[in-house]
Amino acid sequence: MKESLKNWKKQKVIYEDYAIFTPGPVKMSDEILKIGAMQTPYFRNSEFSDVTFSCENSLLEMVNAPQGSKVIFLTASGTAGMEAAVMNLLNKNDKALVVNGGGFGSRFENICASHEIPHTNFVVKNTNLSDIESLAPDEDYTALVVNAHETSVGHLYDLDAMGAYATKNNMLFMVDAISMLVTDPLDMQQSNIDVVIASSQKGLALPPGLTMVILAPNALNKVQDINSLYFNFKDYLKNGERGQTPYTPAVTIMLQLEARLNQIKERGGVARSIASAKEIATYFRESIKALPVKEYTPYMPNAMTTLTPTDGKSAMDIVNDLEKDYKVMVCPNGGPERDIVFRISHMGEMTKEYTDILINALHDYYGIRRT
Amino acid sequence: MKESLKNWKKQKVIYEDYAIFTPGPVKMSDEILKIGAMQTPYFRNSEFSDVTFSCENSLLEMVNAPQGSKVIFLTASGTAGMEAAVMNLLNKNDKALVVNGGGFGSRFENICASHEIPHTNFVVKNTNLSDIESLAPDEDYTALVVNAHETSVGHLYDLDAMGAYATKNNMLFMVDAISMLVTDPLDMQQSNIDVVIASSQKGLALPPGLTMVILAPNALNKVQDINSLYFNFKDYLKNGERGQTPYTPAVTIMLQLEARLNQIKERGGVARSIASAKEIATYFRESIKALPVKEYTPYMPNAMTTLTPTDGKSAMDIVNDLEKDYKVMVCPNGGPERDIVFRISHMGEMTKEYTDILINALHDYYGIRRT
Repeated sequence: MKESLKNWKKQKVIYEDYAIFTPGPVKMSDEILKIGAMQTPYFRNSEFSDVTFSCENSLLEMVNAPQGSKVIFLTASGTAGMEAAVMNLLNKNDKALVVNGGGFGSRFENICASHEIPHTNFVVKNTNLSDIESLAPDEDYTALVVNAHETSVGHLYDLDAMGAYATKNNMLFMVDAISMLVTDPLDMQQSNIDVVIASSQKGLALPPGLTMVILAPNALNKVQDINSLYFNFKDYLKNGERGQTPYTPAVTIMLQLEARLNQIKERGGVARSIASAKEIATYFRESIKALPVKEYTPYMPNAMTTLTPTDGKSAMDIVNDLEKDYKVMVCPNGGPERDIVFRISHMGEMTKEYTDILINALHDYYGIRRT
Repeated sequence: MKESLKNWKKQKVIYEDYAIFTPGPVKMSDEILKIGAMQTPYFRNSEFSDVTFSCENSLLEMVNAPQGSKVIFLTASGTAGMEAAVMNLLNKNDKALVVNGGGFGSRFENICASHEIPHTNFVVKNTNLSDIESLAPDEDYTALVVNAHETSVGHLYDLDAMGAYATKNNMLFMVDAISMLVTDPLDMQQSNIDVVIASSQKGLALPPGLTMVILAPNALNKVQDINSLYFNFKDYLKNGERGQTPYTPAVTIMLQLEARLNQIKERGGVARSIASAKEIATYFRESIKALPVKEYTPYMPNAMTTLTPTDGKSAMDIVNDLEKDYKVMVCPNGGPERDIVFRISHMGEMTKEYTDILINALHDYYGIRRT
């Protein structure tokens, strides 16, 4: 067999043979995929600046950003967005309250430690922090940092309550919204959010490689000089004035982002996308009531369902069996709870029909008839 | 008109209507584009680890890396590769000799300054440094840093001579090969290169967003602990042992990279790709002899031709006129020489027939019959 043909076949298997319910990458729409097959255009011109401006305006509108907010487009994964936000907005004179409810909260904590930002590792469990006022340590903080959806376990925090607490205490409110944007509500003005970090391969349902940091005027005022070229927000803001980035952007993903943001508008706006994700998530959760699994947390987002086996089975074994026997990909917990919880994404181009593949596979796996 | 249709039409114009001779993004092959239109697969599994290993092995073979070399895959633009290499391999006890022959050499100098690496800004002009032995300042250096092809002006340095000088003086030899890999010769063992930085959107002819740092054992021994998560080579090396990256990789571009490296092998290997780029570059340079332009430097790579008008015309005007009147995109010099030099890429899926579009446009523009 010709090498390229072998290669092609392998790629077909990797791509097309599985039903995918992993929380990133997620299923993309045909319209977005088509753009991936086009030549990458030259980008140092006004045509591409218009693409950047269009993405910026649509994103700001989608999160109801306050007047004067800006978007930074980083060619990088989400972690770079988290790290760059900390590097550009916090320093040794700050004191950050970092919510740590799992693997991603722990990552924010590592980032603050690595950059020597004074902080408290605020370990939380079994709360969505609607009671943050009473739970938070009684100390003076300058910033509140959280992953709106702690993706390692599927736990959604109460952004309104956190924002009210941050505002009352004059704290910068920094929110990683990577795995809940588009599927769960986020309103910068309503929740008094100063920084939103988003990424291409979750609810936005694009290929991975593009991360956005949205800065409200409060955050823009705090952008400082830092010892970094690639993560230097001042450079990005300066170039952003003419719709450009200091270094080569992920051009193709930017074009896909523009199309995707227009698609969301045409389909009825982000509220409609959120309602649709909620509908799918509810449908899934209702349809598996007869199975020996239970919801891991009462604070689940629309983006994802996390399940715990109630019959003593290992969650990791279930993940492996579904892949091997049913060609259905769900996701383990990457950390210490790998045997206790597995994760099912409802992000991306999801329908009830597509979700039925997983629902039916789970019923067959347990030998329980779907009712 | 429906919004999506308007959007689509605009994208068609951005993508398809122009003949592109810009040094990144460059023209891609149909095989690579097809992969861009497929669903991004889940990647935390052995199938994707195999993709990573395949990319690593093919890259190491392509640059004739010494036994024990490793590749770090960064989801980022090329500048991140330059900065990450400096951050992970140099520190305050080093003294770097940084070759600065234009915009990209100047960027390396900024990176060293930003990270407080002691260094000399070694400004060079009208030399390919085959005489580096006599030109270099007579000081003790620990590292030699260069952009093999200074892309801002199309100037190729003599890596053999530089490597011999670095070895003789016990210096780490760090080479940004971003805009010459695949089109111009690079041999890590022959030139005693310790670090090679490569990027997806130049000679590799893939979409932008993936950068690779190749580390020879000499460099691997120097990898140090640093205050960064996203650029922490130790994490990448540890995860690389199982074919993974610490953070979400540019999955689609990785799959395109695997296919592209196989394509290069099937077409006769990298030597054949280099010969082909040389043939196209020579064809172009021979075909425009009658026009009032001259080659900007005697040290041009196969990757690119840089031209200076000899009739007093502004280079920037020529770039704009070609785009407006002929739908042909060539590239200005982004710096102070914008009126003196313009740039024509021969990287990517180039043929003589495609190059004829530009040759004919230039003849028509000057009103000179092509002979």
